[in-house]
Amino acid sequence: MLKHKDMKKLFLLVVSIICVQEISSLSSPWSWECINEACVKKETQPGQEEKAISLEACQIFCSEESGLWPKPNGVINVSKILVPVDPSLIEINTRRLGSLTSEAAKLFKEELIRRAPTARDVGDKGKPLSINIFHTEPDTDKLTLETDESYNLVTGIDDKGKLQVNITAPNFFGSRHALETLGQLIIYDDLRNQLKTPIFLNITDKPAFPYRGILLDTARNYISVDAIKKTINGMAASKLNTFHWHITDSHSFPYVSKSRPQLSQYGAYSPRKVYSQKDIEDIVDFAKVRGVRVMPEFDAPAHVGEGWQKTGYVVCLNAQPWGTYCVEPPCGQFDVTKDGLYDALEDIYGDMVEQFDPDIFHMGGDEVHFTCWNQTKSIIAWMAQKGWGREEEDFAKLWGYFQDTAADRLFKKVGKNIPVIMWTSTLTKKEHVTKYLPKDKYIIQIWTLGNDPQISELLEEGYKLILSNYDALYLDCGFAGWVTDGNNWCSPYIGWQKVYDNKPKSIAGSRINQILGSEAALWSEQVDSTSVDSRLWPRAAAMAETLWSDPSNTWREAETRFLIHRERLVRRGLDADALEPEWCLQNENECPIKKV
Amino acid sequence: MLKHKDMKKLFLLVVSIICVQEISSLSSPWSWECINEACVKKETQPGQEEKAISLEACQIFCSEESGLWPKPNGVINVSKILVPVDPSLIEINTRRLGSLTSEAAKLFKEELIRRAPTARDVGDKGKPLSINIFHTEPDTDKLTLETDESYNLVTGIDDKGKLQVNITAPNFFGSRHALETLGQLIIYDDLRNQLKTPIFLNITDKPAFPYRGILLDTARNYISVDAIKKTINGMAASKLNTFHWHITDSHSFPYVSKSRPQLSQYGAYSPRKVYSQKDIEDIVDFAKVRGVRVMPEFDAPAHVGEGWQKTGYVVCLNAQPWGTYCVEPPCGQFDVTKDGLYDALEDIYGDMVEQFDPDIFHMGGDEVHFTCWNQTKSIIAWMAQKGWGREEEDFAKLWGYFQDTAADRLFKKVGKNIPVIMWTSTLTKKEHVTKYLPKDKYIIQIWTLGNDPQISELLEEGYKLILSNYDALYLDCGFAGWVTDGNNWCSPYIGWQKVYDNKPKSIAGSRINQILGSEAALWSEQVDSTSVDSRLWPRAAAMAETLWSDPSNTWREAETRFLIHRERLVRRGLDADALEPEWCLQNENECPIKKV
Repeated sequence: MLKHKDMKKLFLLVVSIICVQEISSLSSPWSWECINEACVKKETQPGQEEKAISLEACQIFCSEESGLWPKPNGVINVSKILVPVDPSLIEINTRRLGSLTSEAAKLFKEELIRRAPTARDVGDKGKPLSINIFHTEPDTDKLTLETDESYNLVTGIDDKGKLQVNITAPNFFGSRHALETLGQLIIYDDLRNQLKTPIFLNITDKPAFPYRGILLDTARNYISVDAIKKTINGMAASKLNTFHWHITDSHSFPYVSKSRPQLSQYGAYSPRKVYSQKDIEDIVDFAKVRGVRVMPEFDAPAHVGEGWQKTGYVVCLNAQPWGTYCVEPPCGQFDVTKDGLYDALEDIYGDMVEQFDPDIFHMGGDEVHFTCWNQTKSIIAWMAQKGWGREEEDFAKLWGYFQDTAADRLFKKVGKNIPVIMWTSTLTKKEHVTKYLPKDKYIIQIWTLGNDPQISELLEEGYKLILSNYDALYLDCGFAGWVTDGNNWCSPYIGWQKVYDNKPKSIAGSRINQILGSEAALWSEQVDSTSVDSRLWPRAAAMAETLWSDPSNTWREAETRFLIHRERLVRRGLDADALEPEWCLQNENECPIKKV
Repeated sequence: MLKHKDMKKLFLLVVSIICVQEISSLSSPWSWECINEACVKKETQPGQEEKAISLEACQIFCSEESGLWPKPNGVINVSKILVPVDPSLIEINTRRLGSLTSEAAKLFKEELIRRAPTARDVGDKGKPLSINIFHTEPDTDKLTLETDESYNLVTGIDDKGKLQVNITAPNFFGSRHALETLGQLIIYDDLRNQLKTPIFLNITDKPAFPYRGILLDTARNYISVDAIKKTINGMAASKLNTFHWHITDSHSFPYVSKSRPQLSQYGAYSPRKVYSQKDIEDIVDFAKVRGVRVMPEFDAPAHVGEGWQKTGYVVCLNAQPWGTYCVEPPCGQFDVTKDGLYDALEDIYGDMVEQFDPDIFHMGGDEVHFTCWNQTKSIIAWMAQKGWGREEEDFAKLWGYFQDTAADRLFKKVGKNIPVIMWTSTLTKKEHVTKYLPKDKYIIQIWTLGNDPQISELLEEGYKLILSNYDALYLDCGFAGWVTDGNNWCSPYIGWQKVYDNKPKSIAGSRINQILGSEAALWSEQVDSTSVDSRLWPRAAAMAETLWSDPSNTWREAETRFLIHRERLVRRGLDADALEPEWCLQNENECPIKKV
């Protein structure tokens, strides 16, 4: 670690390093100067080329947050002096830290090379970089809602002029975040074809909320394994930690269940459009080394259909006119009175538990249409036999019966109770929720408007919540209608500004401690592998900062950093949407409307 | 050509071919049956596998238009019997037809292989296919507004059992369209891993409108050469013929002008974000073999800025507050009183004429802010010297002076007058347009609302128009604001349905003959290489059918074919947006809302 008295000596060293650097042959007449915390574009004057500052270099030292996204939630102390780093001389000491950490270290190095437009552009002149990682709870290798994801990251120069990075974290999940932060602080200087990093830095950081998720629906349309991996990559880059996989629905059943293979055989859109056991293993591993849990959702008792044709357990399958029986075609709900159904569910849960090793499980539970059950003879007969009526409360009781029975089968397969997440629905209404979904067992995921009274009702009852209020976090909104003309039901399109300003505190107020976090949802009626990236990114990253940093500022103050982060996502291989003309990135603060 | 008396014999031959086909190992339990002109999904019964029909096969014979997009504008006669084709035995006779045709033939063969999910999936059992192309005007090798793009396409079986395709067209631009149509009629049967095509067909076809364009803005954000080529590929697949390249603007100047290289040196976002002479040559050639003209727009006298810093010809560059001087940052307009400006323009026009060989040229001319000129001393002095006032009519006169002088320099470089396109603006208002933009010289491109009175005024004055009414054809609308929160100025997002139903006839009425066509515009403030595909496709293809087929039906009747065409675009390598759950494609007519 570096002492302050060495600073002057090092400063001279750094200046001398900068002075011998050569300007790229593909040279631009422009460079940047930090004036009042903004990078200002200037023409490089003849003879001043050696002092010229590239935009990325300026961005790193010209603001308090050093261009980091999400911004650290603690101390940020970053030197204004950058030194070149030789990407071929990076050493990460991961001995005795387990395979997750050594995998993450490998990814870190591979990722660095993407700082430059092409690999050959990274010059090799620069300092060696040595990274040392220390874990205080080295055995933690599974993410839970209690995992401490904090870290401390320190860079300094040792006596031999070598850059030393020390990362201290309770566990892998923290140190991996530290590597992401460090990666954001190593930039490509396009005036000199070099990687550069601040000579000193000290950052302590931890997330404000433990659940930071993205939902991807792979049932309305099939999403390729590669597209899923890209999504997880973007999550890692933005410190999100939960990939909520809405893997089946009434439209298709792409999940290959080891014990019930007929479901995907009949229910997949094609024999190629499935997730094999190998695919899932691959995705779960891919996510884990990136600090992301993969949480499966098996949505029931509605949102089932294709794949179940041969079982007799699904009723109202593609019932028409569909508007009477469900919210979108094709309709389908379980006949929850069939005993065999629960054996099938137990099998599926068993397969999922084995493959995903979940610490939390999503049982869906949205949009049950009582009209369907109320028109199904076997169900009516079963209810009559019990002496039940056919009012809302009776169907709620029926649903409660399903929920209890199904959850027991899940817990049986896990070997213990784990937290179960359920969507807001008729069953989460004040009059039903405490009866059927006890708060010690269930977490409720909100998909109503952000100001729906149900939210405060659930908070008052003591429930823990995850926020996916559709007015700010449904990222499929705003496109064309698909069963109508005009635009889709939750239009308009939600800008990143609205996503950013959707603060849990403004929704939960004093009950903020009951909010586990938020989740951006991408329902795939109008999305498939071609457009996942552009729908999710960079908007999901706006939510990421809201959850990680719990910022008190609005999107306005975050704008420049967000433009920088969008560029990072693109370098990471994601087709993230452009937000503004590049001119606004190169001319900070010149684009917002100014008062006359 | 095939005689009708041979049909029975051939039918038997075909049936025997079908019967020896084997079912794929990756087999699906589903197949399709054509019932009441809709493909209906059915479980394949045991023992019936050989008769099972794949979805793509069903789509081709189950509707009047055979799934073609845009639908042919003449005779469509397609056999319901499909025969397998061996992709390795395709022969296209292009001798003596010139290099454009032989290039197009090569592309046709390469494209065929994309019918299957992977190249190795195309089986080799099938008939040889021989394609003969005949041109009646073989010398036509440049697209103009007068080019006859019609064709006739006939398939039959010769005495040796070989598939013979005869394409007759006036020229390359027609026969290339025929190859696109034929390509759409060769489908991949995923139940048998085979390409198949109808055994007989006869199609005559020609476009309803001569100008069918896409505008791409590469100045607000830089768009890579690869992304531009993908766009042109999508255009070829949809029979669009004009790539309108909005290549420069106030934000950046990526165009490398041979005679004025300083403009891109100072004006490009980076030395890598330019279009070199080689890039442009490459794009122009790429487009031409795909039947697409590349028309450059050099927008002036507003929409100029970056790049011109050293010349002294641009005023109000990045003037603030920008709202006073322009519609979006950065502001910038030519000082049209500077004589040297016209020499610079002549040089740029000269470079463009040499590179693009344009038959029509776009001079831009939108959004001139008189406030800028009215606050520029040199301009005020120049106008005073001429004894002009400083009212709208005086500034219109000034603009008219610019337009006349600049157009003369353009014509000088072309060697003759060519049609010039201008955007609707203050100068196209009734009181100015006939004075400054004579109708024999200028075509007006509409970007107002589709019901703006200016449209009928211009039609009454006898102008020829191109429609880009922003309420239906600005494909960048509906996303987040970028200088504000909320959504961008022309929200909401425009669904394909609205694009399709934007019929020139409903806008122009009896003056329809003055409409040259339409153009979908993609302004790039919030788009760069990552999202060009998803913004343009498949929506631009909806416009393509409106222009090619001049359909009397609405989007409702075109829906299934449009879903099919979207899949084609994806196979062609474009990240076209998904429109609906795949379930709706597999279950035709089950998704639209049904009345109770």
